[in-house]
Amino acid sequence: MKIGLDISGGDFAPKATIAGAILASKLLAENQQIVLIGDQDIAKQHIEQAGENPAFFEYIHAPDTIGMSEHPTKAIAQKPDSSISRGFQLLKEGAIDSFASAGNTGAMLVGAVFSVKTIPGVIRPAIATNVPKVKSGFGILLDVGANADCKPEMLPQFGLLGSLLAEHVYGIQKPTVGLLNIGEEAEKGNMLTLAAHPLLKENDRITFIGNIEGRELFDDKADVIVCDGFAGNVVLKMAESFYMLTRQKGLDDPFFERFNYEQYGGSPILGVNAPVIIGHGISSPEAIKNMVLLSRNMVESNIVEKIKSAFN
Amino acid sequence: MKIGLDISGGDFAPKATIAGAILASKLLAENQQIVLIGDQDIAKQHIEQAGENPAFFEYIHAPDTIGMSEHPTKAIAQKPDSSISRGFQLLKEGAIDSFASAGNTGAMLVGAVFSVKTIPGVIRPAIATNVPKVKSGFGILLDVGANADCKPEMLPQFGLLGSLLAEHVYGIQKPTVGLLNIGEEAEKGNMLTLAAHPLLKENDRITFIGNIEGRELFDDKADVIVCDGFAGNVVLKMAESFYMLTRQKGLDDPFFERFNYEQYGGSPILGVNAPVIIGHGISSPEAIKNMVLLSRNMVESNIVEKIKSAFN
Repeated sequence: MKIGLDISGGDFAPKATIAGAILASKLLAENQQIVLIGDQDIAKQHIEQAGENPAFFEYIHAPDTIGMSEHPTKAIAQKPDSSISRGFQLLKEGAIDSFASAGNTGAMLVGAVFSVKTIPGVIRPAIATNVPKVKSGFGILLDVGANADCKPEMLPQFGLLGSLLAEHVYGIQKPTVGLLNIGEEAEKGNMLTLAAHPLLKENDRITFIGNIEGRELFDDKADVIVCDGFAGNVVLKMAESFYMLTRQKGLDDPFFERFNYEQYGGSPILGVNAPVIIGHGISSPEAIKNMVLLSRNMVESNIVEKIKSAFN
Repeated sequence: MKIGLDISGGDFAPKATIAGAILASKLLAENQQIVLIGDQDIAKQHIEQAGENPAFFEYIHAPDTIGMSEHPTKAIAQKPDSSISRGFQLLKEGAIDSFASAGNTGAMLVGAVFSVKTIPGVIRPAIATNVPKVKSGFGILLDVGANADCKPEMLPQFGLLGSLLAEHVYGIQKPTVGLLNIGEEAEKGNMLTLAAHPLLKENDRITFIGNIEGRELFDDKADVIVCDGFAGNVVLKMAESFYMLTRQKGLDDPFFERFNYEQYGGSPILGVNAPVIIGHGISSPEAIKNMVLLSRNMVESNIVEKIKSAFN
């Protein structure tokens, strides 16, 4: 198994990305190889400085970088030697089995859809994130930003994509699906959720349990919560800011600590023909380590094949 | 000044509502009279039991109650002797200067629009809520549930309504307006925010400062944050759940304490021809007290007349 990692992506790259790769490498089996994509000279330098053996990794030289604020489509097209462009080339050719980056989110999304393409039957891929539960563990929230506007038919698909991720990658048995909404009753909502509710209800591939209000995101009602990418992105960033505030204020609590993005590693793009993971821009070595391990888990679980047959 | 208060509305009514009215009455000037709307015998009984003089209040007998889960439009029409229906009758006739209730939110909204009506020029009234700032004080978020779907032209109006509330009722000088969105750049967003952004920017009645992401809700970027009622409702309820969690976990912090809805009293419906306030269903006596004081402040500030001339 070859796990592709963009070492140039993220606010603290390449130092944090390489440090994370080193941490992850110690936890991988012998046949699980990390492929570092970026400036290979800098990579080897950092690895030597850390007292590790550069021969332990594979390298794909990609000296160019796509900046965090560059226009995704343009950057992908104009910078073939950037780490993200090269990563997707390799993924498309099958030279790596997964690709992860803490770089430009838009470029990751565009790159995934342009290179490995959307799985037939999936209307639009979605970005999934982890939502901690008060009692224990976490749920899955999607979409958190790939689709700012959604058609109603997309939400049951998100429910199925999230359920497959929950079951096969996170080992959540018979995951339940909830619809993020502004009331408990089926007749509450905006045009999107009102139209999506009956579609979710009649879909026998998922276990739909009804609406989830903003106050119920962290309880045990649903393992998978579906919403459009606008609402999901607001929820994700708001949860993040709460976590940062509890940290700033020195609050120490196991539940709030489960908001720490570092432990989840990143957000998978679900519905494309290969495992692709987007890391947080501020990814620390710990976050990168977990992003590599999540990549490994996604490859190992064969999640993409499972999604393909579910949408076949 | 006559401040109308529904004593039957809310999960802990009439005990909490009457206790709140008693607390508020001690803080009001002589010419500021609370009008208790509900079962007057029960009201007088509770006031006597609390060792207070029933003659200190005015009463409007309204023995019927609209339940929390009743259909708003039907209930308003079918229960003319309910406290909410009577409250709006009185407000329409000018027998009270403001009306506040911790009861059925939908009935409050429908009642306001059917009785005192929307101010000419206002497309749709909006419900505003308070959002605490990390440094100090709070901002205004609207809409939080009156309009699950919005047209782009409504958002600059929400900005103006919120700015007038911030300035005249809360004394925030030259309030700034931000658009809740999923990126900092003007070209980020869903169809609604993309279309609303230029309208907000070109509107010279408000001080628009650009997009506000979910992680920036609690910083000082904007005094007024506008969004559709779906996103606003999700944000409001999520913030509430965070506050409840910090409380459950015994976390004691002045910032998190500013999430406590009790101190704000309730959410004004802005854009109708009289001050109308919706209280939280779980309103405590402290919350009811502050809802009465907010009613007083709205009447005293002449906010409705200021909105009327701004939209004239």
